[in-house]
Amino acid sequence: MTYDRIAIVGGGLIGASWAALFLAHGAHVAVQDPDPEAEARVARTLAAAWPDLQALGLAEGPVPMERLLVTTDLAEACREAEFVQECGPDRIAVKREIVAALEAHLGAAVPIASSTSSLLASDIQEGAAHPGRVFVAHPFNPPHLIPLVELVAGRATDPEVIEAARAFYGGLGRDVIVVRKEVIGHIANRLSAALYREAVHLVAEGIASVADVDRAVASGPGLRWALMGPHLTYHLGGGDGGFRHYIRHLGPTQAARWAELGSPELTEPVIAQLIAGVDAELDEYAGTDLVRARDAGLIAILQARARQGL
Amino acid sequence: MTYDRIAIVGGGLIGASWAALFLAHGAHVAVQDPDPEAEARVARTLAAAWPDLQALGLAEGPVPMERLLVTTDLAEACREAEFVQECGPDRIAVKREIVAALEAHLGAAVPIASSTSSLLASDIQEGAAHPGRVFVAHPFNPPHLIPLVELVAGRATDPEVIEAARAFYGGLGRDVIVVRKEVIGHIANRLSAALYREAVHLVAEGIASVADVDRAVASGPGLRWALMGPHLTYHLGGGDGGFRHYIRHLGPTQAARWAELGSPELTEPVIAQLIAGVDAELDEYAGTDLVRARDAGLIAILQARARQGL
Repeated sequence: MTYDRIAIVGGGLIGASWAALFLAHGAHVAVQDPDPEAEARVARTLAAAWPDLQALGLAEGPVPMERLLVTTDLAEACREAEFVQECGPDRIAVKREIVAALEAHLGAAVPIASSTSSLLASDIQEGAAHPGRVFVAHPFNPPHLIPLVELVAGRATDPEVIEAARAFYGGLGRDVIVVRKEVIGHIANRLSAALYREAVHLVAEGIASVADVDRAVASGPGLRWALMGPHLTYHLGGGDGGFRHYIRHLGPTQAARWAELGSPELTEPVIAQLIAGVDAELDEYAGTDLVRARDAGLIAILQARARQGL
Repeated sequence: MTYDRIAIVGGGLIGASWAALFLAHGAHVAVQDPDPEAEARVARTLAAAWPDLQALGLAEGPVPMERLLVTTDLAEACREAEFVQECGPDRIAVKREIVAALEAHLGAAVPIASSTSSLLASDIQEGAAHPGRVFVAHPFNPPHLIPLVELVAGRATDPEVIEAARAFYGGLGRDVIVVRKEVIGHIANRLSAALYREAVHLVAEGIASVADVDRAVASGPGLRWALMGPHLTYHLGGGDGGFRHYIRHLGPTQAARWAELGSPELTEPVIAQLIAGVDAELDEYAGTDLVRARDAGLIAILQARARQGL
């Protein structure tokens, strides 16, 4: 499954990064954004993303600007569109307005994928003329480098739309998962939130500094999580007995830790503590372009994974 | 701070991996293990670990077997030891027995670092003749590749012992954090447990399969966590406004997710579900040596981090 003409609603970082990926795949891409400055911003993001996509073997040649349109006009962006990636503000009223506006310009069968991180597909599709084509396709920032795409059907979503989307994003080199039940935060952001809740607890309780919490992740379990998820990690931790051995023998220590985890609140003093901690941590990275370092690091990790069959 | 003669109690995977790291640093290493097979096992682990340490620039030349002693005799292992890394079974009674046995053979000032992942330094040092030298230095598996070392003082630990240990492990190329208050699981395993609790919840509730939860981590936030921890990741997610912008604008969505997180129990049906899920996931990796792939991947990530100043 592929689409030759794709419309993107919203030319922010996420929309522009999707544009890079779709262009690399050979599609014509039309980005709609109410801001007249969006065209220049999208072009800058594309110029920065393209060498990364080339390094990953996902793009060839110069940026195909001739296949890109950036416009303030939704009707123009939707002309001939076969697929829509919606990247508007993450508020339910705005999302429903966007869907209504899109439906005025699209054929009834054109899928509308929302990049929402915090809303449910069922809520977004409510009131749509053709709710069956509305679903969530949630990427991770930056979408052209982080391969995860979480697909979520709403109550009214046509299962065939999800299957077509799975094939489409898979064809873009994405690692696609289909969430089986709608929940707030889908999968990966819930896992991130769970980790972050404990991170805030450790800082708020004076057990570790912000910088030490970050180091504990990035120089510890985070290194392994870039290669395999927690179950597979524990499988290797179980030695010859594998996950069975792990969960039987060390499951009780997991449960003991679960019982000890904190439930912090983001009060003003805690927020102030976190901000001060991040400021102190940033001093350690003075002179490092963190975005560039992260993106170059992500490319190296993805290349290593491909070499190792992971 | 460095030590020329180091004793290791316990020749399992952790002890043997520590041995590789200490040998690479130029120390004489004596490993004590009651199992006569330990010598052969330690030699195998060393042979496997050495090329990895060379790739990371931490070791040169052949494995210096002439600086290694593996013995069943604790007195022999402790002779001339200036530092002890304890890697025995993670049960408090066993740890206290080991400390008592060590004290019979060591000078009063020789530090005793426990690799414990689940016990508290205060509990381990209880009853010791010289409790001030007993502390926790917790590594991540495999210690010669994962740089994190968590140092924790017990109530009676001498602060100078912790400072010396910080310098010692830092000199071994480790990323050292000093935990400010003793808590179950130290820092990194608490963060891992927090993530894993939600992972089990998602599987137990039928929201995602084991394989999809693992994919959500390893192809999503896990990729970023190998490069920087959660605070720094959110700092970049905040764009030009940084962490301040993130926590003010998206803090409420974090809190909303925290309120939704699950509290699963490791009942027999849940354990069976997890085991079946891991079995299914392993089918996807048939033919891949996961330990070798992980270790090669870790080396590539660490090399990329060094290049990027991360």
